Amino acid sequence: MSRQSFELLVLGTSSASPTSTRNPSSQLLNIAERYFLIDCGEATQIQLRKYKAKFQAIDHIFISHLHGDHFFGLPGLLSSMHLLGRKQSLCIYCPPELPQLMAHINSVSETTLNFTINWILTDSTPNKLIFEDEKVQVFSFPLKHRIFCTGFLFKEKPLPRKIDKYQLDKYQVSTAYIGLLRAGMDVTNNKGELIPNKHVTLDPELPRTFAYCSDTKYDESIVEIIKNVDLLYHESTFLEEHKERAKKTFHSTASEAALMAKKAGVKQLLIGHFSARYSQLDEFLKQASPHFEETMLAIEGKKIII
Amino acid sequence: MSRQSFELLVLGTSSASPTSTRNPSSQLLNIAERYFLIDCGEATQIQLRKYKAKFQAIDHIFISHLHGDHFFGLPGLLSSMHLLGRKQSLCIYCPPELPQLMAHINSVSETTLNFTINWILTDSTPNKLIFEDEKVQVFSFPLKHRIFCTGFLFKEKPLPRKIDKYQLDKYQVSTAYIGLLRAGMDVTNNKGELIPNKHVTLDPELPRTFAYCSDTKYDESIVEIIKNVDLLYHESTFLEEHKERAKKTFHSTASEAALMAKKAGVKQLLIGHFSARYSQLDEFLKQASPHFEETMLAIEGKKIII
Repeated sequence: MSRQSFELLVLGTSSASPTSTRNPSSQLLNIAERYFLIDCGEATQIQLRKYKAKFQAIDHIFISHLHGDHFFGLPGLLSSMHLLGRKQSLCIYCPPELPQLMAHINSVSETTLNFTINWILTDSTPNKLIFEDEKVQVFSFPLKHRIFCTGFLFKEKPLPRKIDKYQLDKYQVSTAYIGLLRAGMDVTNNKGELIPNKHVTLDPELPRTFAYCSDTKYDESIVEIIKNVDLLYHESTFLEEHKERAKKTFHSTASEAALMAKKAGVKQLLIGHFSARYSQLDEFLKQASPHFEETMLAIEGKKIII
Repeated sequence: MSRQSFELLVLGTSSASPTSTRNPSSQLLNIAERYFLIDCGEATQIQLRKYKAKFQAIDHIFISHLHGDHFFGLPGLLSSMHLLGRKQSLCIYCPPELPQLMAHINSVSETTLNFTINWILTDSTPNKLIFEDEKVQVFSFPLKHRIFCTGFLFKEKPLPRKIDKYQLDKYQVSTAYIGLLRAGMDVTNNKGELIPNKHVTLDPELPRTFAYCSDTKYDESIVEIIKNVDLLYHESTFLEEHKERAKKTFHSTASEAALMAKKAGVKQLLIGHFSARYSQLDEFLKQASPHFEETMLAIEGKKIII
């Protein structure tokens, strides 16, 4: 059996204004066929179509904060979901002001969506569990931006133990016990002997993790929360030459993002949210890599399999 | 001297939901270097960049109605104008509910635009003058849609009479009188003789006109308003096979748009606002042309010079 999906698709990489080659922030994360849309800048629905992502499969949308480049695509996406016949409910995790704004938008267009939105409002609690099912947990945590903003931490739950079929036969354990063995329990074999779980199972792969940090200034208070994640997305709006501007606008530079990755001991770093002033992005990689080698640029359409 | 500009650039042609090849409604009209943006569906700012239109030159935005596919691109466009340093004020002609909604959007993102918006609210007065300067007039008129919606009629003002230089010399009229002659007045020549205006001037070209009608069901009550325009844009959301759906949703079919063009005696017809259900558009032209031959499909990036 192949391992369950854990894939990130980059949909938008620009900060503030889009450019002729970069759209505003959005990413689509697939964990075990749960599709999590993270931020929804203008034209996200167009990007979803471009990269052939089934957007009716999205049941959870996470909005980090209410600057337009992170949510101006939401009204259009919801409207299209409605027009294309969506019936199943949708969960939106967002700052408290968004539900009322969406109601205002629907009221001027005299629109009543054909599906229910469950609003889950974020707050500044560090590491707050906001979603959980049998395979995935999602936590929010506050970032340091000009307005209220949260990051999100996506965690696969511990996977079941793997059955070692050869040992199962050898110890004469019935396959009826597979469920219990996967859950880590000891079982009795056909001869009535107690078989310790570890004799017939193997350790599963470690659960995978992804942390999304946009927008924020450099802030070491989140290191404990994002520690050791497999993939960290950290905003990197500016290059070193504009670090004063970064400070003033509560954004990060490429090297700050890389320092954060290093301090948190993450496996890979993805940087994005590039200011429209930069037409070439190579310099971002040049400035980040000396601090943290496993750095990648967020490029639209890029898929990262963890 | 070449004639002043009168050009329409098509930016978006889809109804309701965008498709992988069509964006929601938007058009940019340039009359004598006044740039009028008409409707502003999601991603209009991206389309403006794609077709290299200088969007800081836009001083007037017309919103026909408040269905999302006609204005969801407005918050992002205004935000980009702000971020890119716009200072000059902007006029927005729109239904009465929009200013408050925009204020709500700016309030959640704690944004104060660096420029003033002059809101000019549309109403259901037929043929109401909503903009005028020395070269152009714009009128609004009600359309018949599910929610309050107006069309817009753009008119070049009568052009000054043309000076006939040969006759000017012949009749010995001083060039100091050119201003008066252009305005149609008779003048005195160097010998003190009265020279009738028509002896030394030529008729100017006729003023050009463009009417924008989206969204609406077939409605002959607008025929008088759009009569004889050089270019009529009329929505054509559906093909004949879905004419019941058109009726129900207060939209038009391709043949209805063509009938309207015929009844109004316009010179050219541009059809658009195509439903996402149609991937090919040839059939729209096939169904419209028998009623009105000078029909064109709205294709993104198409520029029509009138």
